Amino acid sequence: MNGKHTIILTITCPDTVGIVAAVSGFLSEHDAFITEAAQYGDPFSKRFFMRCVFVPGALAPSVDELEKRFSLIAQRFQMIWRMHDGDQKARVVILVSKFGHCLNDLLHRYHTGSLPIEIPAVISNHSEMRSLVEWNEIPYHYLPVNKADKTAQERALMALLDDLDPDLVVLARYMQILSPELCAQLSGHCINIHHSFLPSFKGAKPYHQAHTRGVKLIGATAHYVTTDLDEGPIIDQAVERVDHKHTPDDLVAMGRDIENVVLSRAVRYHIEHRVLMNGGKTVVFK
Amino acid sequence: MNGKHTIILTITCPDTVGIVAAVSGFLSEHDAFITEAAQYGDPFSKRFFMRCVFVPGALAPSVDELEKRFSLIAQRFQMIWRMHDGDQKARVVILVSKFGHCLNDLLHRYHTGSLPIEIPAVISNHSEMRSLVEWNEIPYHYLPVNKADKTAQERALMALLDDLDPDLVVLARYMQILSPELCAQLSGHCINIHHSFLPSFKGAKPYHQAHTRGVKLIGATAHYVTTDLDEGPIIDQAVERVDHKHTPDDLVAMGRDIENVVLSRAVRYHIEHRVLMNGGKTVVFK
Amino acid sequence: MNGKHTIILTITCPDTVGIVAAVSGFLSEHDAFITEAAQYGDPFSKRFFMRCVFVPGALAPSVDELEKRFSLIAQRFQMIWRMHDGDQKARVVILVSKFGHCLNDLLHRYHTGSLPIEIPAVISNHSEMRSLVEWNEIPYHYLPVNKADKTAQERALMALLDDLDPDLVVLARYMQILSPELCAQLSGHCINIHHSFLPSFKGAKPYHQAHTRGVKLIGATAHYVTTDLDEGPIIDQAVERVDHKHTPDDLVAMGRDIENVVLSRAVRYHIEHRVLMNGGKTVVFK
Amino acid sequence: MNGKHTIILTITCPDTVGIVAAVSGFLSEHDAFITEAAQYGDPFSKRFFMRCVFVPGALAPSVDELEKRFSLIAQRFQMIWRMHDGDQKARVVILVSKFGHCLNDLLHRYHTGSLPIEIPAVISNHSEMRSLVEWNEIPYHYLPVNKADKTAQERALMALLDDLDPDLVVLARYMQILSPELCAQLSGHCINIHHSFLPSFKGAKPYHQAHTRGVKLIGATAHYVTTDLDEGPIIDQAVERVDHKHTPDDLVAMGRDIENVVLSRAVRYHIEHRVLMNGGKTVVFK
Repeated sequence: MNGKHTIILTITCPDTVGIVAAVSGFLSEHDAFITEAAQYGDPFSKRFFMRCVFVPGALAPSVDELEKRFSLIAQRFQMIWRMHDGDQKARVVILVSKFGHCLNDLLHRYHTGSLPIEIPAVISNHSEMRSLVEWNEIPYHYLPVNKADKTAQERALMALLDDLDPDLVVLARYMQILSPELCAQLSGHCINIHHSFLPSFKGAKPYHQAHTRGVKLIGATAHYVTTDLDEGPIIDQAVERVDHKHTPDDLVAMGRDIENVVLSRAVRYHIEHRVLMNGGKTVVFK
Repeated sequence: MNGKHTIILTITCPDTVGIVAAVSGFLSEHDAFITEAAQYGDPFSKRFFMRCVFVPGALAPSVDELEKRFSLIAQRFQMIWRMHDGDQKARVVILVSKFGHCLNDLLHRYHTGSLPIEIPAVISNHSEMRSLVEWNEIPYHYLPVNKADKTAQERALMALLDDLDPDLVVLARYMQILSPELCAQLSGHCINIHHSFLPSFKGAKPYHQAHTRGVKLIGATAHYVTTDLDEGPIIDQAVERVDHKHTPDDLVAMGRDIENVVLSRAVRYHIEHRVLMNGGKTVVFK
Repeated sequence: MNGKHTIILTITCPDTVGIVAAVSGFLSEHDAFITEAAQYGDPFSKRFFMRCVFVPGALAPSVDELEKRFSLIAQRFQMIWRMHDGDQKARVVILVSKFGHCLNDLLHRYHTGSLPIEIPAVISNHSEMRSLVEWNEIPYHYLPVNKADKTAQERALMALLDDLDPDLVVLARYMQILSPELCAQLSGHCINIHHSFLPSFKGAKPYHQAHTRGVKLIGATAHYVTTDLDEGPIIDQAVERVDHKHTPDDLVAMGRDIENVVLSRAVRYHIEHRVLMNGGKTVVFK
Repeated sequence: MNGKHTIILTITCPDTVGIVAAVSGFLSEHDAFITEAAQYGDPFSKRFFMRCVFVPGALAPSVDELEKRFSLIAQRFQMIWRMHDGDQKARVVILVSKFGHCLNDLLHRYHTGSLPIEIPAVISNHSEMRSLVEWNEIPYHYLPVNKADKTAQERALMALLDDLDPDLVVLARYMQILSPELCAQLSGHCINIHHSFLPSFKGAKPYHQAHTRGVKLIGATAHYVTTDLDEGPIIDQAVERVDHKHTPDDLVAMGRDIENVVLSRAVRYHIEHRVLMNGGKTVVFK
C-alpha cells in the first residue's frame, strides 16, 4: 500500500463530543483529502459509527505511520477501528448447493469487473455448478455431505476455509446449516441470502410458507450468519408484488431475481466496508 | 335497481369444465354486455372464482328475474354467488381510536367522491376524532371502554352495529381486540389495518419490533378480521425502505403513509366486490 | 401437436356482446378445459382482447379441426386470432454488442430452464461475447459493422434472420440502430431494452442524461421495436431509487439489474403470448 | 434562540481539503454536540455540501456569537452558509386550486403535529377549499383569476406573499403558471408537485399523456419552481405500477396518493434544511 491508494477508515466507539473533529482534524493535518464520509450516533445504544474514505496527499506519511499515529486518537475514544486499503480486492469464497442463480449473478459481476473481488474458490456439496465455475477459471471444491456423518464434511470445509483465508464467505443458496463452531469462526464476515422477507418465514421452504399464508409481497433478506438460524443482523432486503395466481413455483422463480439483487448489494456493501455492526443490527452507510 | 344499473356478479364454486361458458352464455342470452371479467381456478383448492361486471341491455329482464333464472345454473355448479348492484354505495362504518390518519384519509376520499361509499357512523373508544368526523357531517359514536368491564362496551358496539347494518366495518387503527363473538359476526366484512408486513411483527407495537430487529423495509397489511389475531386473510400489503437512522417514531410516521394507501386500496377492492375468500387466503381481481 | 398439449388462444377484435360466450361455449362444447383466461375491452379503441389457455380433453378433436371449426366464430366477430402450442418452445435469437449483462441473464434463465426457449443463435457486431455464448453451446455469429458501409452488415443480419426464422428477436443491449426495413420486417416480434424510463431520456447515454437532470429514480423499458426509435409499444418498465451521490457510472451499474429484470419479464410475457397490441400500446395479461 | 435549541448548519462551498476538520473542530471547541451530519463533494461541479445538526452545550456561546465566530471560517472557504434554529417552525403558505388531496394531506400532518410547521395562510384561485381550511383555523385567501387580466391576480398574490413573508411556498396542485418575476422572487423556497415522473410528460394533463403513451408506471415529482416550467431542481419522485386496464381517470386517482407522499416528503426535507442546491439539481441529505 502506498500513499496513492484510497483508504477506508471505519470506526465504532461510544458516542461523545469531538469525535468527528478529532478524526477530520487528524486527516487534515496529515494531508489526507476526504472524498466520502458518513457518521451516525445511535441514541439507543449510545454508540457512534463512522466511515471515512480519504486519499493521502503528497505530504502524507505512509499508511503504517498513519495508523500508528491514529491509534492515539483511537485509544482516547475507545474506538474499534481499521484502515482498509480501498484498492485491494476482497477475497470472496462462495458456497453453493444446487440453485445456481445467485452464483451465476455474482460470477458475472466478478467477470465483468462490476464487483471488484477475487474469488479464490467456489465450494459446493454438489457437483452441478462445476462447469460454470471452471469456465470462469475459478477452482471448484466439491465437498459432498455424507448424511451419516455430516461433521466430516464440515471439518473439511473449515480446513479449506482456513487455507483460503477469505475476507468474506458468501452462502449463495448453500442449503446446509452451519455448526455453531463454524458460525462463530465466520462471525461478521459470512453473508447468507435467505429467500424470504425476514423475520417472516424462517427455515425451510419459505416460498411455500408464503404461498400458504397468502401474502401479497414476497422478499429476500441478506444477513450475517450467526448461530441463531435466520436471526443474524440484516444487511439488505427487497420485495416483489405477487398475487393469488402465483403458485409456489412461480414465487420461487420470481424470488430468484430479488435474491440476486439483494445478495449482490449486500456483498458490495460489505467489501466496500459500508456495514458496521450495532448489536444484532447493522449500520449501512450507502 | 333497474335495467340500467351495472351489476357485479361474484361466483365461487368447485372448478370444472364449462363454468365460463355457462355464465357468459347466460349473460349473452339475456342481453347483458360484459364490461369486465376475471376468473381464476386454484389448482390447490380446486375452487373456481369469477367476477363479472355487466350492463343489462334493453331486452334484459329485471334483476330479480335474472337472479331467479341464474339460480338454475348456480345450482348445477354448486355456486356461492351474488349479483351486486354496482351503483349502490356501500355502507361503511369506521372504527377508530386515537390515531386519525387512516380515518382522515378515508374521509377525504369519501368527501371528494373518490371512494363511492356512505358512512353512516364513525365509532370510537376515544373522543379525539369527533370534531373531524362531525365536520364531515357524519354521526360520531363515543363508546369509551371501562377497563373493569370491557364486555359492556363491546355489547354496546354490537348493538350499534346491528342497528347500522353496514356492508363493511373498517378498523382504521382501532386499538381494541374484538371478542371471538364479534369477529364471527363480522366475518368476511370487517377489514383491519395492521401496521406491519404480516406475518412479521404480529401484536402490539410492530414498528418498535421492527426497529429492534433492524429490518430494512417496514410495511402494512390490510386483512379480514378473524378470531385469530392478525391471522386473517390478507387483502393487500405494501412496504417502504428504512435504514439504521430511523427511530421507532420515524417508522411510525413513515408507516402512516403506507397504512393509508394499503387500507384505502383494500376498502376499494372490497366495495367493488373484487375480493373472494379462498380458505384463509384471498383472491383479489384487480 | 396432439390433444394433450396446452393451447393458448389469443384474440383481438371489435368489442361487442357475446364474444366471451361464443369462445367459452365453443371450448366447452369441444371438451376443452380452460385453465387460465383473461379479457379486456378498451373503452377508447373499442377493441376487445382475450387470452385463453386450455387443455383439450379426451373427446376434443385435433387442433387442426379445432382451428377449422373456430374460424367460423372468428369470422363472425372479425377476430385476429391464433392458437399457439403452449408446449412448443419459442425460438429466440439474441442480438448483443459489448454489454453482456442482459445476455448473461437470459442465457442463465435458458440454461436452467426457467425461461422455456430455444436459442438458435446469438448475433453480435462485436466478438466479446463469443466465449460465454459458446460455453452455452449456442452458435455465435459475429457480424462486424463497417462504418463506411453499415448497410452491408444489416443485409447480412437480415439474411441470417431469414435463415433462422425466429419467433422473437431480442435486442439485449444491441447498440446499432436498425433500418426502417428491418424494423418493419421484425414488427411485433422484436423486443428492445432501453436503459431509461421512457419516454424520458430517449436516444444515447440515457443514464448520463438522467444524471444531468438530477432525477431521483432511474429506470429501464422493454418495448417492441418500431421505426420510431424508442417509441414502440411498451411491454414493461421498472425503476430504482438513486440520489445525488450516484455518478453516471453508478447509474449504469445500478441500471443493469433493472434492465435484466425488465427484459426477461418482457421476453417471458411475449413467449407466453400474454402481450397483445393495442395501437401504439400493449395489453399485457399477467 | 437560546443555547438549548438545536441548530442546523448548512454549508455550500468549493471542495477542498480541511472543510470538515475546520467545521467540526469549530463546533467541538465551542462545546457543541453534533447529533447528525452529512457531507458530499460533487466530483463534477467541484462543490462541497454539508449539513450538520448540533446542540450547543453549557459552555457554548450565544448563537449570535457562534455565527460571528464561524464567519471567519466561512470566509476562508468561501462558504454559502446558515445556522437555522431547529426548533423554529417554518412558516409555510400553501397555494391550491380545485384538487384538494395534497392540501388535505398537508393539513392533516400539520394538524397532528407530524409536520412541524405553521401555516399562516392558504391561498386559492377558487373557493372550494375554504371550508376545509377554515376548519383547521387557518385564514383562507380567495384570489380569483380574471382571464382578461391575469396579472392583477398575480400582483395581489405577490403583495399577499410579501405581507406573509413565508419560509416556504407550496404549490399543492395550484393550476396557474407563475410569472417569471414571481418565480424569481420565490426562487429556492417554492415547491411544486408535478403529477408526472419528470422529465416525462411536462405541461398539462400528464396522466392523459401517460395513458396515451401506454407507460407501465406513473409518477409524481416535487421540484423547486423556476422560470422554466417543470424544469426546476427535483427534490423527490415516486412511481406506482399501472396497466392497460387503467383509464386516465384511474391514473388521476392513483396518482393522488403518490403526489401526497412525494410532496409531503419534499416539504419535510425542505423545512429540515436537508436540501441544498447544486446548479439545476439538488443534494438531499435524508
